[in-house]
Amino acid sequence: MTDYDAVVKLALERGFYFPSCEVYGDAQAGFWEYGPSGVSFKNKFLELWRRELIRRDGMMEIDGSQIMSGSVFEASGHLASFADPITRCKKCGLTVRADKAIEEAARITVPEAAEPAEFDRIIDAEKIRCPKCGGGFASTERFNMMFKVGIGPEGREAYLRPETCQSIFVDFPRLFKSMRGRLPMGVGQIGKSFRNEIAPRQGLLRLREFYQAEIEVFCNPARLDLVEGFAAISDTVLRLQMTTEDSGVMNVTCARAVESGLVPNRLVAYYLGLLSEFYEKTGIDMSRGRFRRLGQKEKAFYAEVAFDFEVETSTGWLELVACNYRSGHDLSGHAAKSGEKFEVMDGDEKVLPHIFEISMGIDRSLYTILEHSLRHDGEHDRTVLSLKPYLAPVHIGILSLVKKDGLREKTDEIHNSIKRRCDAFLDHSGAIGRRYRRLDEVGAPLAATIDHQTLEDNTVTVRMRDSMEQSRVGVAELDSVVAAHTSYP
Amino acid sequence: MTDYDAVVKLALERGFYFPSCEVYGDAQAGFWEYGPSGVSFKNKFLELWRRELIRRDGMMEIDGSQIMSGSVFEASGHLASFADPITRCKKCGLTVRADKAIEEAARITVPEAAEPAEFDRIIDAEKIRCPKCGGGFASTERFNMMFKVGIGPEGREAYLRPETCQSIFVDFPRLFKSMRGRLPMGVGQIGKSFRNEIAPRQGLLRLREFYQAEIEVFCNPARLDLVEGFAAISDTVLRLQMTTEDSGVMNVTCARAVESGLVPNRLVAYYLGLLSEFYEKTGIDMSRGRFRRLGQKEKAFYAEVAFDFEVETSTGWLELVACNYRSGHDLSGHAAKSGEKFEVMDGDEKVLPHIFEISMGIDRSLYTILEHSLRHDGEHDRTVLSLKPYLAPVHIGILSLVKKDGLREKTDEIHNSIKRRCDAFLDHSGAIGRRYRRLDEVGAPLAATIDHQTLEDNTVTVRMRDSMEQSRVGVAELDSVVAAHTSYP
Repeated sequence: MTDYDAVVKLALERGFYFPSCEVYGDAQAGFWEYGPSGVSFKNKFLELWRRELIRRDGMMEIDGSQIMSGSVFEASGHLASFADPITRCKKCGLTVRADKAIEEAARITVPEAAEPAEFDRIIDAEKIRCPKCGGGFASTERFNMMFKVGIGPEGREAYLRPETCQSIFVDFPRLFKSMRGRLPMGVGQIGKSFRNEIAPRQGLLRLREFYQAEIEVFCNPARLDLVEGFAAISDTVLRLQMTTEDSGVMNVTCARAVESGLVPNRLVAYYLGLLSEFYEKTGIDMSRGRFRRLGQKEKAFYAEVAFDFEVETSTGWLELVACNYRSGHDLSGHAAKSGEKFEVMDGDEKVLPHIFEISMGIDRSLYTILEHSLRHDGEHDRTVLSLKPYLAPVHIGILSLVKKDGLREKTDEIHNSIKRRCDAFLDHSGAIGRRYRRLDEVGAPLAATIDHQTLEDNTVTVRMRDSMEQSRVGVAELDSVVAAHTSYP
Repeated sequence: MTDYDAVVKLALERGFYFPSCEVYGDAQAGFWEYGPSGVSFKNKFLELWRRELIRRDGMMEIDGSQIMSGSVFEASGHLASFADPITRCKKCGLTVRADKAIEEAARITVPEAAEPAEFDRIIDAEKIRCPKCGGGFASTERFNMMFKVGIGPEGREAYLRPETCQSIFVDFPRLFKSMRGRLPMGVGQIGKSFRNEIAPRQGLLRLREFYQAEIEVFCNPARLDLVEGFAAISDTVLRLQMTTEDSGVMNVTCARAVESGLVPNRLVAYYLGLLSEFYEKTGIDMSRGRFRRLGQKEKAFYAEVAFDFEVETSTGWLELVACNYRSGHDLSGHAAKSGEKFEVMDGDEKVLPHIFEISMGIDRSLYTILEHSLRHDGEHDRTVLSLKPYLAPVHIGILSLVKKDGLREKTDEIHNSIKRRCDAFLDHSGAIGRRYRRLDEVGAPLAATIDHQTLEDNTVTVRMRDSMEQSRVGVAELDSVVAAHTSYP
């Protein structure tokens, strides 16, 4: 079983995630649900994100509508160009992405943005046929990946947002004014985005409905090296890779990265540093991560400089975060289309802010943490999800050794006394060893077992997930043991 | 200015909420965004919901897809009947809800579910004309309120969910099995739902895209009076009103409500009790709240028993929660349509669970808390948002008395030391009185001011929002003062 398969098995069996509408035959690919363990894990991950990025840096957080009006996406360019090249088999009707079909059949990389005729030329020249039935392909077309919805009985055109950042751009004038903004000003948002992918990948890796945590830093392009908090991360090490696959990863401090020109300015280096410290705390193996600077052809057309934060998994390198210096592209687009003023004062200077973006895929990040945390403990023949204790869906299992002799009641009482303040899982049934195994699989760092001695001296056995060590702890201290062991760093 | 207008003014000026896409002319009604204060307030409200309902009762929480396949809504009946009666003015094209137009013009109440011909008959008989131009109306039609989306290049039919509960129903077989469920089993979900309303009301009161927190309790219909935790809420007082407006509100304990038959069984009374205790802690004035038992004509067709939790506001009585005993309607519908097994074992008995639902509107709840918390303090001529400290968007303001003499640096240092663990707002600029006023308006329960004495003895002035009392507190104790004052009850 590959690591990917092991994660999916765990996800399905232990309530992390599973396919949406799975009881129905018309369930669509690319839609998944978080189960109870997944929700608890995700909420803790998001709280860490808030602590390490939003609150640490004094950013704001908003929560905008997912349905947005057409003008937004005219200004952003999505209506015109957020489209995949697709082609359909004339024989069996299979629809594929033209660039992927060419890549797979002929190992030729054609940029997504190429003209439809260019795809047709290569499909023709390389004699590429339908992978399913061998039929020929019709002409390549552009398929817009936004989901359209009709508002009101008139069906006025609107769209499910394909990225959360557009609300942040559009809301900028009000936010800057009502929150008494100052440049640089960071605004984050956690929420769903929607992309009508032709070929969603399995599980959480490519979804049609997915979670993003995006941060947009509005800044004065003339002051990109004046970053107040830079000292706090100047010694933080970044793993940088320049453009090409074969150039190797360098370990450089944020300060050195700017001095040497690997990162263009202090503002970009500062946020790469914060992001690096954040992921370090998620439990992802950072020795398998890198910030890769994208080449001219790879990066989005609006990006002056782009770094992808990528992590190695059993499915290959996975892009978890796109960091783009988007320059003035977004605000000038919305200013021109709306007629609204997007310039603000920075000291005595009137500026149209530039934007540096940190666009995080939440689902992929959660997948990667699961894969890097899941291990088989051969010595004890058990599966252990060694999550950081503050990210574990369950903080502590509360178990009765047996149900009789008043142990059930005592166990319920202990559970009742702590269950609001932490994630405590009450479990009365099955062999104690099996109950420990299930807690190991869900990543619970602690388990407390109530036995006959508890009735005598009011102590319980506390077992640690990773070391399997056990010790006696007074019931009155349980609260502080849990807090000390599971609080955020 | 009405209380409603005062809340909207505060919401716009202090970053609680504001209209979506407001810089554009094609912004659609019924879509709003939460600003920085709103997000922080909402997150704290949701944490209280988790503590007082999900964790207190040992429920599960899931997070499902918003786009769901057509079969789900065929089985639920939404495709056939989730529709408003609408009619269009033949002269100016204005579309209105037929029932509302009749209500407003002729004060006749026609049930939403009546046949289109019935509306036409009354419109004709009462000579009802377009309220805008006086034109005549076309025939009444049914307008389905679900938003349709097309999946993939083929545009396969799917829908934005009109309520979060359908994912919980459809996921029930997997949840019960993988999470080792036992009846009664509560499953909650927080998320967005979508309804293509003809006439969205202003602000957060009737949205096209809105937040719900729904809980579905799966139970054995033969055991509705066997509720393990009932003793914990048996003395909790419910404010009950039976069916009609004029019957008056009775204060009865949960135990008495069941004995007297006002509430049909202990299971329903138990959850009304939990809900009542939850809302008590939100700061809503419960003397203006009631659980109103709906009459036969008012309640949804699937509900055997229904209580609405309603609160009096300046806009009238507002329904915040619908509590429905939905019987076996949902699971038998999905079982029949999908062919999947939805029966489970309860002890030795095989049962198709019944469902009791607690369907909460989050946006309306937040609005109501704001309205009930906002007051004008005439004595000091200030506006105060007296939120419960644990729900306040900002826990503590950190203010420098002046920026010079090293006070700015000292203030930054204190802010840095606590900002990850609580919501601390750093503010250096403007007169100190004006900074206090702004903190009062955003509901911050505490403010710490750093002055020259701070440099000498490392103490700060802590000011309380409600009493305006001030005291000196050591910097080292600030953390525990904040924690003690703002922790959940």
